Amino acid sequence: MSSTVSPLAPTELPDMPEIAGVRLATAAAGIRYKGRTDVLLAILDEGTTVAGVFTRSKCASAPVEWCRAKLKGGKARALVVNSGNANAFTGKTGKQSTALTAQIAAKAVACSQNEVFLASTGVIGEPLDASKFDGVLGDLAKSNAPADWIGAAKAIMTTDTFPKVATATVKLGKAKVTINGMAKGAGMIAPDMATMLSFVFTDAPISAAALQSLLKSGVEDTFNAVTIDGDTSTSDTLMAFATGAAAAHGAPKISRASDPRLKAFTKALHALLADLSEQVVRDGEGARKFVEIIVEGAVSKMSARKIAMSVANSPLVKTAIAGEDANWGRVVMAVGKAGEPADRDKLSIAFNGIRVAKSGARDPSYDEKQVSEAMKAPKIQIKVSLGLGKGRDRVLTCDLTKEYVAINGDYRS
Amino acid sequence: MSSTVSPLAPTELPDMPEIAGVRLATAAAGIRYKGRTDVLLAILDEGTTVAGVFTRSKCASAPVEWCRAKLKGGKARALVVNSGNANAFTGKTGKQSTALTAQIAAKAVACSQNEVFLASTGVIGEPLDASKFDGVLGDLAKSNAPADWIGAAKAIMTTDTFPKVATATVKLGKAKVTINGMAKGAGMIAPDMATMLSFVFTDAPISAAALQSLLKSGVEDTFNAVTIDGDTSTSDTLMAFATGAAAAHGAPKISRASDPRLKAFTKALHALLADLSEQVVRDGEGARKFVEIIVEGAVSKMSARKIAMSVANSPLVKTAIAGEDANWGRVVMAVGKAGEPADRDKLSIAFNGIRVAKSGARDPSYDEKQVSEAMKAPKIQIKVSLGLGKGRDRVLTCDLTKEYVAINGDYRS
Repeated sequence: MSSTVSPLAPTELPDMPEIAGVRLATAAAGIRYKGRTDVLLAILDEGTTVAGVFTRSKCASAPVEWCRAKLKGGKARALVVNSGNANAFTGKTGKQSTALTAQIAAKAVACSQNEVFLASTGVIGEPLDASKFDGVLGDLAKSNAPADWIGAAKAIMTTDTFPKVATATVKLGKAKVTINGMAKGAGMIAPDMATMLSFVFTDAPISAAALQSLLKSGVEDTFNAVTIDGDTSTSDTLMAFATGAAAAHGAPKISRASDPRLKAFTKALHALLADLSEQVVRDGEGARKFVEIIVEGAVSKMSARKIAMSVANSPLVKTAIAGEDANWGRVVMAVGKAGEPADRDKLSIAFNGIRVAKSGARDPSYDEKQVSEAMKAPKIQIKVSLGLGKGRDRVLTCDLTKEYVAINGDYRS
Repeated sequence: MSSTVSPLAPTELPDMPEIAGVRLATAAAGIRYKGRTDVLLAILDEGTTVAGVFTRSKCASAPVEWCRAKLKGGKARALVVNSGNANAFTGKTGKQSTALTAQIAAKAVACSQNEVFLASTGVIGEPLDASKFDGVLGDLAKSNAPADWIGAAKAIMTTDTFPKVATATVKLGKAKVTINGMAKGAGMIAPDMATMLSFVFTDAPISAAALQSLLKSGVEDTFNAVTIDGDTSTSDTLMAFATGAAAAHGAPKISRASDPRLKAFTKALHALLADLSEQVVRDGEGARKFVEIIVEGAVSKMSARKIAMSVANSPLVKTAIAGEDANWGRVVMAVGKAGEPADRDKLSIAFNGIRVAKSGARDPSYDEKQVSEAMKAPKIQIKVSLGLGKGRDRVLTCDLTKEYVAINGDYRS
């Protein structure tokens, strides 16, 4: 946790309602940090379904491999998340750590190990001493305090500067259901931290298969459409848990994602994932500008996505934004290198609504002074219009500052 | 040109011999800079063949489009290079500028416009006033001074901190032939500069088709295997000119790249391209460390290249090197995100010959103090051993420093 909160942080935290069937408790297990909580135990009522999407890294962490394997059962009773150690690139020891953690959690919660899900964030390559969870998880399981969602979001932080939570309440059938979510972001102040974790909980009665389908489609335009530095963690994890408790007050049981009664829920879930992923960007390392890249007129949405990501990940574009420079020449460069169809002479570019380039050349009418003023805003929108087709996409990122280099260039020890 | 020379610059410049059939002259045309040369005219004897490889950008500059079109003729009599303005993203005006420049050069040299090649480097998006070449090129064509190769390399610099030249002399048949080359690099101190240009000249009698083939294969492991920040310019240009003058003292005329007599020449050309591309890396923006990434044991060379590029372009790896941190966790991350086959538990990583990770975990025998000492060197080698196959590749890059952000975050005007 940094002492300086990101200038792009939301001004207030939402009130987080309870989710029937979910208990949360945190503790200081002394994994790496001192004087703060570093372990979260979520206890889920029987009947809770689970879904998850994970990093595409070929070198995924041990907890990611554990979750992938256990997801097949579709049932969850416990989630254990620790900060301070990612249990990534830890070889056989890492596998043993996950097995031991699950064993301790299963005993504490009185469930099968196959219903325990795990996530770890922090240092890569250090063995995680799972025996530190012994006792701690048992005590947490006995806790009867009401769920403190913001406390939970804080326990999973590493170098984040603020806790990230979001909530939504919608109708499922005629019943009210609630969705709560939390995330930790891409702060990596101690150099070998690298993880995006997010957990979503709902009392809606949704089957594991339907939840998986919702999560997969929900992530596409939210978590998969943000980038801080283009570096994909070995531990990225987004999981959703549905306790089904709302069935008690009349929520219909949903088994298929295509069920028309899910419409409002799906919309709310997507909005919640969008909110959390935006918060991750707003806490990007060293970020001083929140940047939205919109690409329109591409040959397809996928093509627009590739071009938007090329712009969002370009160090030259990102440093220009840090310098409050509407440097459209670099945007052209990033569009050009994406390798997707683009016709230089049809290209238009606007910064915060001011068109600076059109038809493949500088817009003769643009006023440099006006643009300079607009670039001082904390939120910068870059809109690229390709003029080729109807493909459109949107990606969120932040600027690249000297602070990013300082954060990540400091020596580990 | 920066007043501070890169600490990674070569300690001395080579003596550049003459190339029969090549005349060079430079002038200050006042394109953008004051008090320095900014235009190079190379005049080539009749019979000179030409080859070129260019940026893969979909938004290539007007001079790149001009050269691509004229390359079909295979013959060159003049090369005009200017610094200060890239003539990129300049719409119809850009096309008109190239046509006018070629017309002026053709008149000065008394050749066809189809034998004139052009390259421009500097600001993107500003119209290039080609009328500034009028008179200047005519005067240059009349100049009888001996070719000043280092002066030529200086005239094409933008924010490079040192001129980049290389030379080689080899036997072709029983005759001695010479290859001279120059390059300008990825210095981008004034923010919207972005171009890699390189020109190679030889007196060897080689057909345009054979030269094109040699250049294409030569670029693969040289210019295409270096990266400063992963941002591809709209203007990248590498051209080779063969005057054939060495035929007068017995060099055989070569029409096919597969001709066995070309062996020594091909090897020398590749070494020269490797030398020039390494110099470009050594002058990377804000670079303080020269970094060599070797990936071995991959399933193929192409797979090794993708993984090496993923490591080389990772901001987290590059900032760690700037911080003299042997952060192998970030190397694992970059290997994992490349999307190529990799087995975490077979992975080994070494920094400057010291193995820090093996079999998917920290090497228990490694001495952090020894590695820390090794990371202070100006050259850092990262070797990734995948243990899967025989694919091997090598990529050169530099570190990512606060200076890079400062250079590229300064306001344009």
